Amino acid sequence: MAPVLSKLADYRYLRFAAYGTGLVLTAHFLGLYRSGTKSKDKESDIVFTKSGKNGAKEKAAIDMNFIRRLKQILRIMVPGWWSKETGLLILVALMLIMRTRFDVWMIKNGTSIESSIIARDRSRFLRYLFKYISMQPAIALTNQMLKYGLNALKLHFRKQFTLHMYEHYLQGYTYYKMSNLDNRIANPDQLLTQDIERFCNSVVDLYSNISKPLLDILIYIYRLTDTIGAQGPATMIAYLVVSGMILTRMRQPIGKLTVTEQQLEGEFRYVNSRLITNSEEIAFYNGNEKEKNTILLTFKKLYDHLQKFVGFRFRMGIVDDIIAKYTATTCGYLIVSRPFMDLKNDRFDNYSHSELLEDYYTSGRMLVRLSQAIGRIVLAGREMTRLSGFTLRVTELMKVTKELNEGHYERTMVSKNDEKDGRKSKKSMELVPGSGKIITKDYIICFDKVPLVTPNGDVLIEEMSFTVHSGKNVLVCGPNGCGKSSLFRVLGELWPLFGGTVTKPSRGKLFYVPQRPYMTLGTLRDQVIYPDSKKEMLKNGFSDEQLQEILQKVQLENILEREGGWNSVQDWMDVLSGGEKQRMAMARLFYHKPQFAILDECTSAVSVDVEGFIYQHCRAVGITLFTVSHRKSLWKHHEYYLHMDGRGKYEFKPIEDSTVEFGS
Amino acid sequence: MAPVLSKLADYRYLRFAAYGTGLVLTAHFLGLYRSGTKSKDKESDIVFTKSGKNGAKEKAAIDMNFIRRLKQILRIMVPGWWSKETGLLILVALMLIMRTRFDVWMIKNGTSIESSIIARDRSRFLRYLFKYISMQPAIALTNQMLKYGLNALKLHFRKQFTLHMYEHYLQGYTYYKMSNLDNRIANPDQLLTQDIERFCNSVVDLYSNISKPLLDILIYIYRLTDTIGAQGPATMIAYLVVSGMILTRMRQPIGKLTVTEQQLEGEFRYVNSRLITNSEEIAFYNGNEKEKNTILLTFKKLYDHLQKFVGFRFRMGIVDDIIAKYTATTCGYLIVSRPFMDLKNDRFDNYSHSELLEDYYTSGRMLVRLSQAIGRIVLAGREMTRLSGFTLRVTELMKVTKELNEGHYERTMVSKNDEKDGRKSKKSMELVPGSGKIITKDYIICFDKVPLVTPNGDVLIEEMSFTVHSGKNVLVCGPNGCGKSSLFRVLGELWPLFGGTVTKPSRGKLFYVPQRPYMTLGTLRDQVIYPDSKKEMLKNGFSDEQLQEILQKVQLENILEREGGWNSVQDWMDVLSGGEKQRMAMARLFYHKPQFAILDECTSAVSVDVEGFIYQHCRAVGITLFTVSHRKSLWKHHEYYLHMDGRGKYEFKPIEDSTVEFGS
Repeated sequence: MAPVLSKLADYRYLRFAAYGTGLVLTAHFLGLYRSGTKSKDKESDIVFTKSGKNGAKEKAAIDMNFIRRLKQILRIMVPGWWSKETGLLILVALMLIMRTRFDVWMIKNGTSIESSIIARDRSRFLRYLFKYISMQPAIALTNQMLKYGLNALKLHFRKQFTLHMYEHYLQGYTYYKMSNLDNRIANPDQLLTQDIERFCNSVVDLYSNISKPLLDILIYIYRLTDTIGAQGPATMIAYLVVSGMILTRMRQPIGKLTVTEQQLEGEFRYVNSRLITNSEEIAFYNGNEKEKNTILLTFKKLYDHLQKFVGFRFRMGIVDDIIAKYTATTCGYLIVSRPFMDLKNDRFDNYSHSELLEDYYTSGRMLVRLSQAIGRIVLAGREMTRLSGFTLRVTELMKVTKELNEGHYERTMVSKNDEKDGRKSKKSMELVPGSGKIITKDYIICFDKVPLVTPNGDVLIEEMSFTVHSGKNVLVCGPNGCGKSSLFRVLGELWPLFGGTVTKPSRGKLFYVPQRPYMTLGTLRDQVIYPDSKKEMLKNGFSDEQLQEILQKVQLENILEREGGWNSVQDWMDVLSGGEKQRMAMARLFYHKPQFAILDECTSAVSVDVEGFIYQHCRAVGITLFTVSHRKSLWKHHEYYLHMDGRGKYEFKPIEDSTVEFGS
Repeated sequence: MAPVLSKLADYRYLRFAAYGTGLVLTAHFLGLYRSGTKSKDKESDIVFTKSGKNGAKEKAAIDMNFIRRLKQILRIMVPGWWSKETGLLILVALMLIMRTRFDVWMIKNGTSIESSIIARDRSRFLRYLFKYISMQPAIALTNQMLKYGLNALKLHFRKQFTLHMYEHYLQGYTYYKMSNLDNRIANPDQLLTQDIERFCNSVVDLYSNISKPLLDILIYIYRLTDTIGAQGPATMIAYLVVSGMILTRMRQPIGKLTVTEQQLEGEFRYVNSRLITNSEEIAFYNGNEKEKNTILLTFKKLYDHLQKFVGFRFRMGIVDDIIAKYTATTCGYLIVSRPFMDLKNDRFDNYSHSELLEDYYTSGRMLVRLSQAIGRIVLAGREMTRLSGFTLRVTELMKVTKELNEGHYERTMVSKNDEKDGRKSKKSMELVPGSGKIITKDYIICFDKVPLVTPNGDVLIEEMSFTVHSGKNVLVCGPNGCGKSSLFRVLGELWPLFGGTVTKPSRGKLFYVPQRPYMTLGTLRDQVIYPDSKKEMLKNGFSDEQLQEILQKVQLENILEREGGWNSVQDWMDVLSGGEKQRMAMARLFYHKPQFAILDECTSAVSVDVEGFIYQHCRAVGITLFTVSHRKSLWKHHEYYLHMDGRGKYEFKPIEDSTVEFGS
C-alpha cells in the first residue's frame, strides 16, 4: 500500500509539474516569437508607413504598445458586458471546452471500436459503433456552433468597428482633409473596407487559435499523466520546447524576408497606379519606354527577392520537417513504447492483448494531439505578428482621423527658398496652419490680411484684403494656379487659415458650384435637392411641381421624361452631358437659395440666354455671386472684379465702363 | 488451385472495376461541381463586369470557354517544351508520385512499429524505428522539392504572364486609352499586380490539388484491393459519390451567396472610393450626412447578407459533418470490419493477433486516406470555379488590351438629344471613332473639317478647320471645357478622330507641356531629359554642362546644389514648388527642341521676365507654340488666336493691334 501511496503522491506532483511546463512553454513560445519578430520590426515600419510617406514611427512588434492598441480597439468592438458580442465570446468559449471533451471521448471510443474489430468481437464492436453513431449529432452540433460563434463574432466586430470609424471619418470634412490636406494615409477606402475586415477576422481567429490548443494541452497532459505517467508528456513537451526554440531562431530571417516582400509588392503596385494617374502627361510626352523600364525594374527587384525567398523556404522546410515532424514522431514512439518495453514493468502482465492495444492507442493518439496542439501555439505566435500589423494599420487610421478632427495635419512641405520663383515668399514668413480667425456674419464676405497658401506651404498670395456685401457680384479671374480655387477653399473652410481674419456667413449660407458638377448616387430628385434628402425637401415646403419649375428655369425639364421621372435611378455622372450637368448644378443653386454662391466656370457649356437668365434670377432671389470666367458677356452682371496674376499680386476693383479686360 | 485461380481472376477483374469507378467518380465530382456552379454564374458576370460598367457578357462557368481561355494563357506562361516552366512541371509530377509512394510506405512501416510495440517485441520495434529514421531525410527532401517546385512554378508563371501583359499594355497609349477612353476595366493596376498573381497561384494549386488526390485514389485502390478486396473501396467510393451528389446539390446556394457577397463588398468599396474622388465637391456642398447615409446603407446591405450567409453555413455545416465526415467513417469501420467479422472467413484463422492488427490498420488507414483524397477532389471542384473567376478577369484584361491596340473602345455614351444644350449636335450626325485621317507632314499643322468630340460622344465643336505653319505662334483661349484640351488630345493622337483630316508632323516633333507638369521617378537629370534615358542623352550629344545651361535659362540652376546634384533621387512631385515644376517643364522643352509645342497655361506661376525669355528662346531655336492663356502680356509673342466659346463656336484670326481681348 505504502509504495502505491508514495507513487500516487509523486505522480500527483509530477502531474502538476507537467501542467506547469505546459503553461510555461506556451508563454515561452509566444515570448520566443516576440524576440523572433523583433528583428523584422526594424523594417516593418517601412511597410506600414507605406500608406503615408512620412510619420508613423511605430513598429509592428508584439509589445505593450500592441496590447494597448488592441485593448483600445476591443473596447470599441465589445461595447459592454451585456452586449451581443460578450454573449458570442462566451458561447465560443463553452463550445471550445465541449469540443475538446468530445475529442477525447472520440479517441477512446474509436480505439475501443478498432480493438474490438481486431479482437473480432462483433457485439462489442456494434455496441461502440452505436455509441459513436448516437453521439454524432451532438458532436456535429458543437462543431458548427463553434464555427457559427466565430463567424458571427467576426461579423459583429466588423460592424461595431466600421460604424465607429465612419462616425469620425464623416464628421466635419475629415474625409476631405485625409485625402487632400494630409498625406499620412494614402488609401482610406481600403483601410475602411478590407483592412478592418482582415483585422476583425484575425483577432477572432487568434482568440480561437490560442485558447483551443491551450485547452488541449491541459486536457491531454491531464489524461496522459493518467495513462502513461507524467514523464512521457513532460519529455515530449521538453523536446518540443527545445526544437521550437531552435526552429524559431532559424526561422527568424523569414520575418525580414516577408516584410521586404510586402514592401516590394507595394512599390510594384505604386508604380502601376502612378502610371495610370499620370497617363495623359506620360502619353503626351511619349514616355512609354521610360515608364516601362521603371515598372519592369521594380518587377525584377520583386521577382529576384521572391526567388531568394522560395530558396530559403526550401532549405528551411527540410530542417522543419526533420526536426519538428519526423523526429518528434520518433520521440513519441520511444516515449509511448517505454512502458511496454521494460519487461520488469508488471503493469501490463495481466493485460489482454486488446487492452494493451487500447492502452497504447489512446495514449499514442493523445500524444499526437498534444504535439499538434503545441505546434498550433507556435503558429499562433506567427499569426500574432500578422495581427500586430493589421492593428498598427487601423490604429494609424484612428489616430489620423482623430488628429484631423482636431485640425492637426502632416504633409511634406515644398523647400522654402524659392525667391527665384515668381512669388517671393520671404524666408522670414512663418506658416502656422489654423492661425487665422473666422468671424461668422450674415450678408458680408470680408478678407482681412489673409494669406493664400496651399496645404504643402506653397505661398500663392502673401496677404489679401477685400470686402463684399450682399448684392454686389464679383468677377474673379486669373491664370490657372493663381489661387482662385484656393480662395474658395478658404471661403468654404476646407483649407486651414494661415493668418488674417475672414468674415463670412455660416457654411450653409455659402454655396459653391464646382467646375466639375458632382452628381450623387440616387434618384433624379436627389440630384436637384442634393445634399438634402426627400424628407428635408418636403420639410422645406418643396413639392415635385416646384422642382419641375426649377428644372424649367434651367431648361432641363426634358430630362424629366427622358430619364423616366423623379424616382429613376441612374449613373447620372455618365448619363448627363456636360451642359446638362452644369445646368443641373444651377437648378441645385436655385433650390437652396444661399446668401452667396461661387460659380467656378460652371456655365461654360451653357447657352448665352440660359446664362443670362441664371444671373437675373440669382439677383431676383438675392443670391450674391462670385463668378470665375473670362467672358465679356458676364461683366454686365457684376459690380467688382478680383484679378490674381498668378505671381502673388492681385487687384480688387469696381467694374466701370472703362474696364476693358483682365489680362495681366 | 483452381478456386484460387478463379478467385485471383475475378479479383483482378474487380480491381479494374474499382479503378474505373475511381476515375468515373473523379470526373463525376468535377462534373457535379460544374452543374453545381451553373446557378451561381447567372449572377457572376455582375461581379466580374464590376471592373467595367458594361460589356463582358461572359460567365465564370467551368465550360469550354473556360478551358479555351485557360489554354490560351497557359501557352503564354509555358513558352515552349524546353522552357524552365516545363522542367518545373515535370519535377512537380515526379515528386508527387514519389511522395505518394512514400506515404504508402510510411503507413505500412508505422503500423509495423505500433504492432511491435503492442507485441512488446523490442528488436522488431527498433528495426522498424531505425528504418523509419533512415528514411526521414529522403522523405523530407521529396516533400520540400515538391513545395519548391510548386512555388517556383507560381513565380515563373507570374513572371511570364506579367512580362507578356506589359508588352501590350505599354505599347502605343494602351495604358492611357484603358483608363481614359474605355470604361470596361476600372482598375488595371490591380489586375496587373494582384489578380495576375492570384491567377498564377490558383492555377498551380489546382494542378497539384487535382493530380495529387487522383494519384492517391489510384494507388490506394490498388493497395486496398490487395488487402481487403475490391468491394471495400468500391462501396466506399459509391457511398462518397452518392453523399457527394447530395451535398453538392445542397451546397448550391453557397455559389449564389458568395457571388452576392463579392458584389456587395464591391459596392461597399465603390461608394468609399467615390467619396474620396469627389471629396472636394462633397465637402463644398456639405454633403456629409447624405453620403454617410449612402455608405451606411450599402454596409447594412452587406452586413445583412453576411449574417444570412453565416446562418446558412451553420445549418449546412451540420449536414456536411454528419454525412461526409461521421457517416463516412462509420461506413469505413463497417467495411474494414466485415472480413474480420464473418467468422466463416478462414483467411484470418492462422493470423497472429499482431498480424490481424497490421492487416486492419494498413487497410483502415488507407481507407481514411482514400476518403480524404476524394474529399480533396470535391474541394478541387470548388477551387476550379474560383480559378474560372480569375481567368475571366485576366482574359478580359487581355481582350481589352488587344482591342485597344487595334483602336476599338467601348464606353457609355451620353444621351444624344440635347439640342437644348449650348452646342446643337444634330441627331443626324453619326459618330464613328477613328473615321478621320491623319497625314504626317513637317512644319505644318492643319485641321480640315475635324469635329471635336469627347470619347463619350459629347460634341464640343461640330467641325474645325485652320492651318498653322512653322514660325506662327497661336494663342488658344476660351472657357473651361470649351475643347482646348480636346484639341490637343487630338493633336497628340491620344483621342480618336471622329472625322475630317489632320495634317501634322510625327508625334516626336510635337511637344505638349501640360498644366500639371509631370515629374518622373528618378534623378534630377531624368527630370530634364524626360522621356530620354541618360544613354540617349549622351547619344544626342548632350553633357551635364549643357543641361546646366538649360537650367540657367529657366533660372533653376539653384536647385542643382539645393537638391544635391544631377544624380540625386527624390520625390520631385513634392520637392519642387509650383513655379519650379513649370520651369522644369520648360527646361525639358528646350532640351528636346520639337517643331511645335503646346504650352497649356504652363507659365502661370513663372515671373514675367522668365516668361518673356522663354518665348524669345523658342522663336530663336525655331519651336512654334500653341499657348493657352489669357495674359495680355503674351499677345505680342503670337501671330494668331484661336478662340472657342464653349458653345460649339470658334474663331481663328490673325492678331492685329485692333484685337483687344478674347472674352466671348
